[in-house]
Amino acid sequence: MSTFGHYFKVHTYGESHCLSVGVIVDGVPPCLELSAADIQPQLTRRRPGQSAITTPRDEKDRVEIQSGTERGLTLGTPIAMRIMNENQRPKDYGNSTMDKFPRPSHADLTYQEKYGIRASSGGGRSSARETIGRVAAGAIAEKCLKLSAGVEIVAFVTSIGDEYLFPPTAIHPSPSTNPEFLSLLETISREKVDSFAPVRCPNAEASARMEDLISDFKAREDSIGGTLTCVIRNVPSGLGEPCFDKLEAMLAHAMLSIPATKAFEIGSGFGGCRMPGSIHNDPFIKATPVAPSATGLAEVESKIPRPRLTTKTNNSGGIQGGISNGAHIYFTVGFKPPATIGQAQATTTYDEEEGVLEAKGRHDPCVVPRAVPIVEAMAALVLMDAMMAQQARIGMRRLVANV
Amino acid sequence: MSTFGHYFKVHTYGESHCLSVGVIVDGVPPCLELSAADIQPQLTRRRPGQSAITTPRDEKDRVEIQSGTERGLTLGTPIAMRIMNENQRPKDYGNSTMDKFPRPSHADLTYQEKYGIRASSGGGRSSARETIGRVAAGAIAEKCLKLSAGVEIVAFVTSIGDEYLFPPTAIHPSPSTNPEFLSLLETISREKVDSFAPVRCPNAEASARMEDLISDFKAREDSIGGTLTCVIRNVPSGLGEPCFDKLEAMLAHAMLSIPATKAFEIGSGFGGCRMPGSIHNDPFIKATPVAPSATGLAEVESKIPRPRLTTKTNNSGGIQGGISNGAHIYFTVGFKPPATIGQAQATTTYDEEEGVLEAKGRHDPCVVPRAVPIVEAMAALVLMDAMMAQQARIGMRRLVANV
Amino acid sequence: MSTFGHYFKVHTYGESHCLSVGVIVDGVPPCLELSAADIQPQLTRRRPGQSAITTPRDEKDRVEIQSGTERGLTLGTPIAMRIMNENQRPKDYGNSTMDKFPRPSHADLTYQEKYGIRASSGGGRSSARETIGRVAAGAIAEKCLKLSAGVEIVAFVTSIGDEYLFPPTAIHPSPSTNPEFLSLLETISREKVDSFAPVRCPNAEASARMEDLISDFKAREDSIGGTLTCVIRNVPSGLGEPCFDKLEAMLAHAMLSIPATKAFEIGSGFGGCRMPGSIHNDPFIKATPVAPSATGLAEVESKIPRPRLTTKTNNSGGIQGGISNGAHIYFTVGFKPPATIGQAQATTTYDEEEGVLEAKGRHDPCVVPRAVPIVEAMAALVLMDAMMAQQARIGMRRLVANV
Amino acid sequence: MSTFGHYFKVHTYGESHCLSVGVIVDGVPPCLELSAADIQPQLTRRRPGQSAITTPRDEKDRVEIQSGTERGLTLGTPIAMRIMNENQRPKDYGNSTMDKFPRPSHADLTYQEKYGIRASSGGGRSSARETIGRVAAGAIAEKCLKLSAGVEIVAFVTSIGDEYLFPPTAIHPSPSTNPEFLSLLETISREKVDSFAPVRCPNAEASARMEDLISDFKAREDSIGGTLTCVIRNVPSGLGEPCFDKLEAMLAHAMLSIPATKAFEIGSGFGGCRMPGSIHNDPFIKATPVAPSATGLAEVESKIPRPRLTTKTNNSGGIQGGISNGAHIYFTVGFKPPATIGQAQATTTYDEEEGVLEAKGRHDPCVVPRAVPIVEAMAALVLMDAMMAQQARIGMRRLVANV
Repeated sequence: MSTFGHYFKVHTYGESHCLSVGVIVDGVPPCLELSAADIQPQLTRRRPGQSAITTPRDEKDRVEIQSGTERGLTLGTPIAMRIMNENQRPKDYGNSTMDKFPRPSHADLTYQEKYGIRASSGGGRSSARETIGRVAAGAIAEKCLKLSAGVEIVAFVTSIGDEYLFPPTAIHPSPSTNPEFLSLLETISREKVDSFAPVRCPNAEASARMEDLISDFKAREDSIGGTLTCVIRNVPSGLGEPCFDKLEAMLAHAMLSIPATKAFEIGSGFGGCRMPGSIHNDPFIKATPVAPSATGLAEVESKIPRPRLTTKTNNSGGIQGGISNGAHIYFTVGFKPPATIGQAQATTTYDEEEGVLEAKGRHDPCVVPRAVPIVEAMAALVLMDAMMAQQARIGMRRLVANV
Repeated sequence: MSTFGHYFKVHTYGESHCLSVGVIVDGVPPCLELSAADIQPQLTRRRPGQSAITTPRDEKDRVEIQSGTERGLTLGTPIAMRIMNENQRPKDYGNSTMDKFPRPSHADLTYQEKYGIRASSGGGRSSARETIGRVAAGAIAEKCLKLSAGVEIVAFVTSIGDEYLFPPTAIHPSPSTNPEFLSLLETISREKVDSFAPVRCPNAEASARMEDLISDFKAREDSIGGTLTCVIRNVPSGLGEPCFDKLEAMLAHAMLSIPATKAFEIGSGFGGCRMPGSIHNDPFIKATPVAPSATGLAEVESKIPRPRLTTKTNNSGGIQGGISNGAHIYFTVGFKPPATIGQAQATTTYDEEEGVLEAKGRHDPCVVPRAVPIVEAMAALVLMDAMMAQQARIGMRRLVANV
Repeated sequence: MSTFGHYFKVHTYGESHCLSVGVIVDGVPPCLELSAADIQPQLTRRRPGQSAITTPRDEKDRVEIQSGTERGLTLGTPIAMRIMNENQRPKDYGNSTMDKFPRPSHADLTYQEKYGIRASSGGGRSSARETIGRVAAGAIAEKCLKLSAGVEIVAFVTSIGDEYLFPPTAIHPSPSTNPEFLSLLETISREKVDSFAPVRCPNAEASARMEDLISDFKAREDSIGGTLTCVIRNVPSGLGEPCFDKLEAMLAHAMLSIPATKAFEIGSGFGGCRMPGSIHNDPFIKATPVAPSATGLAEVESKIPRPRLTTKTNNSGGIQGGISNGAHIYFTVGFKPPATIGQAQATTTYDEEEGVLEAKGRHDPCVVPRAVPIVEAMAALVLMDAMMAQQARIGMRRLVANV
Repeated sequence: MSTFGHYFKVHTYGESHCLSVGVIVDGVPPCLELSAADIQPQLTRRRPGQSAITTPRDEKDRVEIQSGTERGLTLGTPIAMRIMNENQRPKDYGNSTMDKFPRPSHADLTYQEKYGIRASSGGGRSSARETIGRVAAGAIAEKCLKLSAGVEIVAFVTSIGDEYLFPPTAIHPSPSTNPEFLSLLETISREKVDSFAPVRCPNAEASARMEDLISDFKAREDSIGGTLTCVIRNVPSGLGEPCFDKLEAMLAHAMLSIPATKAFEIGSGFGGCRMPGSIHNDPFIKATPVAPSATGLAEVESKIPRPRLTTKTNNSGGIQGGISNGAHIYFTVGFKPPATIGQAQATTTYDEEEGVLEAKGRHDPCVVPRAVPIVEAMAALVLMDAMMAQQARIGMRRLVANV
């Protein structure tokens, strides 16, 4: 289904060549200041082939709020948002080869199998354009999270192909034990990430290596994958709904629903599975009041009480037993190399005839940098839904408990 | 919430020290032959400290079907199942240290933060005992999947610590390109997996290495993690609901909801993110009628039509655009080292006092082998729910379409 | 929430003075022929102050399909529809009295209480304009139901104030035992209903009485309520999901979610509660092949098998145990007199000051005739969702059962 | 489906002749004092053929709490409850006629049509025994509502056949304008209702008339229906989720899901549809602090703020625009005459042969009195779910709003 969330409920629509793409967001708190200006920046960061910094006045993918606000305040009713498609003609791919061949590792064939019909652009809702509604909805969730708890969500590129920001080592099978990594989690900001355009890996040297690699693949009409890491700071403790909707389970669901994703790790991830418990366990220490964060939002300004204990290390990635513990949540998402490549591919037509597919046109050799705002948006949707579930619980507990 | 699934809806209950644990399964097809004998084997495989082979007559964790069947057939109404807890006394852990200290990397503190109360056994529903209901429900889903499409689900251990069944190599950053791995996916059965008790890694040499490693950690009162791979054969094409409930997203959600999981990979996974698209893409080939599978269920007996095209390679892991393509689905799940260890740990009490926690008693140094039936169960729940969504679609399409 | 349905999922948005109102419809079967022409007629029937017959070329409330179709066929992906609001300026009501007073029996105060804010037009989503999305979605559901099973849904006015089409009598405490009523259910069509514009009560004499009554109330700047009856013919047997989502429960939910509704009766309704069981019970008789129905769709063309037994009488209203039995479903919905009236009303301001409210402008003295397409739409949404649930069940039963 | 509610989620199971019936309740606030003693009274009131007063020490239908509490406090985890079936043998009805004939107006045939199989007791989950889980879950909801807001829910019989507590009159087409009725709503308690056993109509004269009527029908081996009215006092304002989940829509859904119900009215109901708006509208007046209520829970003790305005009359039944306004909510539910009667009925067998069905054994001539606790339970489930939705909203609004 095209809905996500229980309390903060998002419903998206649209494929590449229809009139528009968009989203309805249900459950937005009333009395929130909200305008298109809150939503547009992330849509702009998502746009193909550019970064927010290089194209500050981009006029495309403009969001129009349809409902749910008046005089700049939310009414508590559903907020619908629409973003026009520029190219609404079916057949835009206009490639007779494309009509004959299902693209390898693309969704052309599976959409045909599932629905008995397929959009002319191939895999209908599997298009990256589908993610626009997610990003628009995520921007609203983010604003709520920031205002309510000072939550900050920042994603950045951690590898392209075999080029890593923090290569796994014998000592650090996961970067979760690497102080340099932990320090980056503490301070990284979106501005910093975007300053490393176009790769969005916040390290000059690694970024250069990655950019070269992408260029190589582009030159060969090939493609390459990579990973993003996302950190969420100032998360209230107590979020996540056992047993099936553990916070990491919802994050994994959200991330693997993004096109082209192949893998998800919370905290220490696969590397952590190689560590002894005696090292992997995060001992508790007394929490100290937190200093103002990089982006200026002080912990102390949060309206939500913070736990009195925190962890000395953070291999857990801020979640224990499916519930946030107040430490930074961080996770890594793997993206495969894009399926559409210019290189000739020996494959088979819909009519079961062998042949060679050559995809004309410009193709993105790597989607990882552009996925940054999408990952941030999906993280925000998960957190916001969990926040509302916990607010309902806290509210009722306060009302019924004798304590 | 403690519910999973939309159409095949599972609702579990129970923690370690209450009267019983159990589950209600809603949406079970009527007229299905079903008895406790269909459910007990997986519950027995799940039991701590033993394998199905060594304890064939185990009398514990007996499932009692409460409702929904008559004369051995399902009625189409909810099937409730109950499994008694043997030790219902709170305070069983009986350790004054345990009362003072939240266990590092366990759920004690986060449950307290979330609910303002915690079960005496620590993290309430974070107990492994919670998974019993999942396994019971999964056994029903599995039976439906097997009868309807010949679906076979087999999980097996692929690594413990740094001991791998298929270590990553420069040529095969993911085993997805390794012919030996692909051949194993084709033939592996539960009987074979269990014959490699107690580690459940289906290779004598690797299994021995892993067993030694676990023994070492046990001796040191430490713990170690590892990974499981699960293959699902004979999956009908067309399963998975774009855009948010892609099949891999639901699998990731399901797997990360299992206690102690840290990571999930579909198909080529993180390794695939390092490959060029030209290698990673799975070209299409004409499908040939499939020979009878290892467990005797022939593809040709399936009541569901198979697609005319299949893929030559399978880096996609049987899913493209969030929808099954009919090839084997396989994925890998990472489990962290168990949090409860006998070694002394410097940590802090609930009352913010520094101290040393020593967890008395026997603790499982590695949960990976026992997780095999849990992973299989959750995979079955995801598949069954997707099957029902697709049956509704196919049914309506047939009724409304002019084709 | 602004969502309705589990399989055929509808999500609406919009209030009176925002940019547009609309809906996303998820779960629409693929390969269905669909265009705006399928949706517009019911939207036009819903428009204020007119009937479809008198204003055949009405240019307002035009639906724009945003997504989910290509070359006139549905893709199986979400169908978004948008209808522009003409008057988007807040403050249109422009009445300083209106700003001071919550309108008695309107939603102004409760929206303020719930959200801490209210739209300038008063009760935000309680506006009748909210129902546009329902009607648009219902039109798609109706088309599916008609094509798949020949389902016909027709609502008509059965009372305005004390003027009844079938007044309750000692012999017929409910019209369910009145042959004239049952005969009407058999034959009534939308064309017939609309031919009795503007009241939509399909009886010349009763219609005239009702029209006079409405005129009286209009002249007095007062308002009056009434009832609608809706019949659904050619319903497949087996629809409705025990125990909480019984078919009549879903219909009641759907109807009471329409603005201004106060009551719901299935079949014999409250009248039936006064009858002896020996009269109320519907004995079974052998079903005979049904002749082509009034609107030209023959039962025999249905692709869904009909039960071999039917009932001699139909006090049950086509539903027994929450499940359709194949007989006509019929129900009655009560609408209150509109809350906004021109007459002066002694009431109290938001600021707790007593005063007199006089609502300027033209107000509809009776909403019942206009509610006809809304009731039909909501009935279609309920039926379609139940159809899909049953298709999923039937599909799985066929696959797993030994029968 | 057998689930009800979004945030306070209830999942029931069980039919007449299986091992047990029961329920899982998810979303119960943690730290609530809860034991079987909170649940048993309503189960006892629900038992057939008796009232709480006459059988204070009834040992049947004992609830066993399976999970979710420790030391008398809820843990915030799912609470499972089980009630054994005494008669678990299928075929208990043991009537060869019953096997041949689907009972008229019962669910035998529709269950067979829906599922392709039927329980030996006839309509599986359509049995009144299914309601036990609802009552058990409702008791928990009620306790939460009472502690948090002083909510009081009391249902009572208002008519049996043509015998009314408040017969409709020309002046009062609905009792909503009758001061005697409104006064009863203010003061009626469960103790009072039960003191009028066995009819549960709180008026000696009306009760006697009704009891006589039921006796007459019993003597004739016939059956008769009737109506219940339910009042909910001390409801916080702001409950109910526009647009589809309006509070009256959820109540209608809940009530029509109870076996044997045919009709639902909120507030003035069908009678109100006959009134002029000028009379039906409820003018606002300044609210005055409310005196302690009949059951001793003072309004002033409520932890939830009450609105500053209330209504002078209450034709709305405490709900406007789908949202509670703080006034008493009241509604009426119609129950049909029980379908199983001793009288001979000419009908048709499953095999399409005409014949005569005589149902042996004792049959309840009227279910209305016993439905009292079921209606109360379902009302509590609706209110509690709405409370949690609103707590989530209020919590977030407080955190994000600038006001």
